[in-house]
Amino acid sequence: MKAAIIGGGVIGGGWAARFLLNGWDVAVFDPDLEAARKITAVLDNARHALPQLYDSALPSEGTLSYCDDLPRAVAGADWIQESVPERLDLKRRIHGDISAHAPADAVIGSSTSGFTPTELRATGARVIVAHPFNPVYLLPLVELVGTNDTRAASILRSIGMYPLTVRTEIAAHIADRLLEAVWRESLWLVKDGIATTAEIDEAIRMGFGLRWAQMGLFETYRIAGGEAGMKHFMAQFGPALAWPWTKLTDVPEFNDALVDMIADQSDAQSGHMSIRALERLRDDNLIGILRALKSTGTGAGAVVAEHEGKLSAHSRP
Amino acid sequence: MKAAIIGGGVIGGGWAARFLLNGWDVAVFDPDLEAARKITAVLDNARHALPQLYDSALPSEGTLSYCDDLPRAVAGADWIQESVPERLDLKRRIHGDISAHAPADAVIGSSTSGFTPTELRATGARVIVAHPFNPVYLLPLVELVGTNDTRAASILRSIGMYPLTVRTEIAAHIADRLLEAVWRESLWLVKDGIATTAEIDEAIRMGFGLRWAQMGLFETYRIAGGEAGMKHFMAQFGPALAWPWTKLTDVPEFNDALVDMIADQSDAQSGHMSIRALERLRDDNLIGILRALKSTGTGAGAVVAEHEGKLSAHSRP
Repeated sequence: MKAAIIGGGVIGGGWAARFLLNGWDVAVFDPDLEAARKITAVLDNARHALPQLYDSALPSEGTLSYCDDLPRAVAGADWIQESVPERLDLKRRIHGDISAHAPADAVIGSSTSGFTPTELRATGARVIVAHPFNPVYLLPLVELVGTNDTRAASILRSIGMYPLTVRTEIAAHIADRLLEAVWRESLWLVKDGIATTAEIDEAIRMGFGLRWAQMGLFETYRIAGGEAGMKHFMAQFGPALAWPWTKLTDVPEFNDALVDMIADQSDAQSGHMSIRALERLRDDNLIGILRALKSTGTGAGAVVAEHEGKLSAHSRP
Repeated sequence: MKAAIIGGGVIGGGWAARFLLNGWDVAVFDPDLEAARKITAVLDNARHALPQLYDSALPSEGTLSYCDDLPRAVAGADWIQESVPERLDLKRRIHGDISAHAPADAVIGSSTSGFTPTELRATGARVIVAHPFNPVYLLPLVELVGTNDTRAASILRSIGMYPLTVRTEIAAHIADRLLEAVWRESLWLVKDGIATTAEIDEAIRMGFGLRWAQMGLFETYRIAGGEAGMKHFMAQFGPALAWPWTKLTDVPEFNDALVDMIADQSDAQSGHMSIRALERLRDDNLIGILRALKSTGTGAGAVVAEHEGKLSAHSRP
C-alpha cells in the first residue's frame, strides 16, 4: 500500500510516520527545502515511541521517498493526505491538482482543522476531511467528514487509528469546537490577568484532564451525578452553570499584545526545555497513559488493544 | 489532626476519604439519613484505589464519626470543609453556623464550584474556597480562593493534594470556567444534532484528552508550534480560530427537552454499566494514568511522587 503525503511539517510528518511504521510506502511532496529534515525529526520520535505501545512487533517499515512534483507523489497512491497550511485558497488549489492526478480509487483526505469538505471541493475536487491530532503517530482520533466510504474508515483502523465519522459538516468539526471554546476562555483568563498559562495548564492536568483522557465529558458527569445519573447531575449543576455561561459570550481581541503576553508566559513556563525534549516527554507520557488504558480496555486503550491483536495475528508464521 | 466534613455526598465523602486515608480523624455532619451509606460507598472506592497509587504505605486510617449537630462536628477541628448543594442561601446560613462554632485557628473551606469567597462571607463568615475535583481522593487539584494562608496550602499538600491559588475572585474560579465553555459548546453540538454525547466523549478521549492529562492546553500548543514556539502557533492558528469563535457566543436554552436528550443519549452510551462499575473503572484508569505520570514526574505524577516520598520518610522507624 502507498500513501502520498502532500505537505510535510508536524502533521504531514506525523501521517508519514503513522503509515510508514505500519508497513506502508510513503511518498512526500513538499516544496519546503526543510521538509526532509522536519519529517525526519518526527520519524525519530515515532520510531522511539510507537513500538513501545504494542506487545506485538509492528510490520517492517515501508519505503519513504521525496518527490519533486505532486503528480509523481500521488501516482499509484491508495491514500493521499493533504496537510498544507490552513488557507482555503491554497488548499483549494492543491486539491485541484491532487484530484487531477490521483488514481480514481484513491482516498483523498485533508488534515484541515477548520474547513468543511464543501468548502474544499469548490473546484470540483473529491476530497474528504480526515482531521488528525498531534502527535498523529500516537493519538488514534481522526475526524472523518463528508464521506460514507467505509474503506476510508477501515484503512485508518488498519493503521491503528480511530475514525470518528462527523455526520454533519460544521466549521472546526467536533473536537476543535471544544478546543476553541476552551482556547477562547483561556485567552480571557490570561488577558484579564486572572491566571497565567502555567496556572491554566495546572488547572487542567491536575484535575479534569485526568478524567477526560479516559472518559471524556458526559461520561464523567454521568458518574458525578451518582446513582441518580445524568438527569440528577444536570438538575444539580445546570442552573449553576447557566449564569457563568453568559460571561463567556464575548470574544477577546486577538492582537499582538495578547500574543506577546501568552508567548512570554509560555516561555517562562517551559522555555528551559527544548521542543524536542517536550515532544519526548509528551510521547513517553502518552505511551504510559495508553498502556494503562489498554490494560482496562478503555477508550484509546481499546483501540491500542485491538490493533495489537491484528499485529500479533499478522506476525504469526 | 481532625477534619470536619459538613455535607456528605460524593464530594464530602471524597474529602472524608482523602483525610481519613492520610491518617486524619474525620467527623461528618449531614442531616441526610443516607449520608453514612453514601460516604461508605465513596470510602470503599478510595480504599480500593488510593493505596495502589503509592509504593509506600499510607498511614493507618484515622477515626470516622458521624455527628448529630454541626457544633459537635467542628469542635476541635483543624480543617472544616463544607460541601453542601450549590445554593448560595444555604451555604451562607451554614457558614454562619460554622464560623460561630469553629475553633479560632481552624481552616474553613467551601467546595463551591461557582461562588466566590466574598459571596459566601456576606454573613461575616471567615470561609475560603477550597474547590476540589471528583474523585477527591485521587485527583490532586484544589482551587484555593480568598486566602494567603500558607497553612491551608501546606495542609492540602500533606494529604497529597495540589493547591492552586486563584489570585482573583471570579465566578467558577479557573477550571470550571474552562469546563463550562466546553459544556456549553457540547450542549450546542448535541442540541443541534451534530454529535451525540458518546461521539463527543470519543472526540475528547481519543485525542486531546490524552494530551491534557499530562500537559494541559498551552504547553500542548507550545509543542504544536514546533521549534518556532508559541508565537508561531498563534500566528498560524489564531486567525483560523478567530472565525469559529464567533459561533460560540450564543447560549443554549437549558430546558427539559435538552436535559432529556442528553440523559437519554448518556443512558444509551453507558446505561449498561452501574455507576459503581463506572467509578471503579474510572479509578483504575486514574491509578494507571497517575502511575504512568509518576514515572516521568509530570504534572499530577510529580505530586504523587512527592507525597510518596513523604510517606516513605514517615514510615521509617
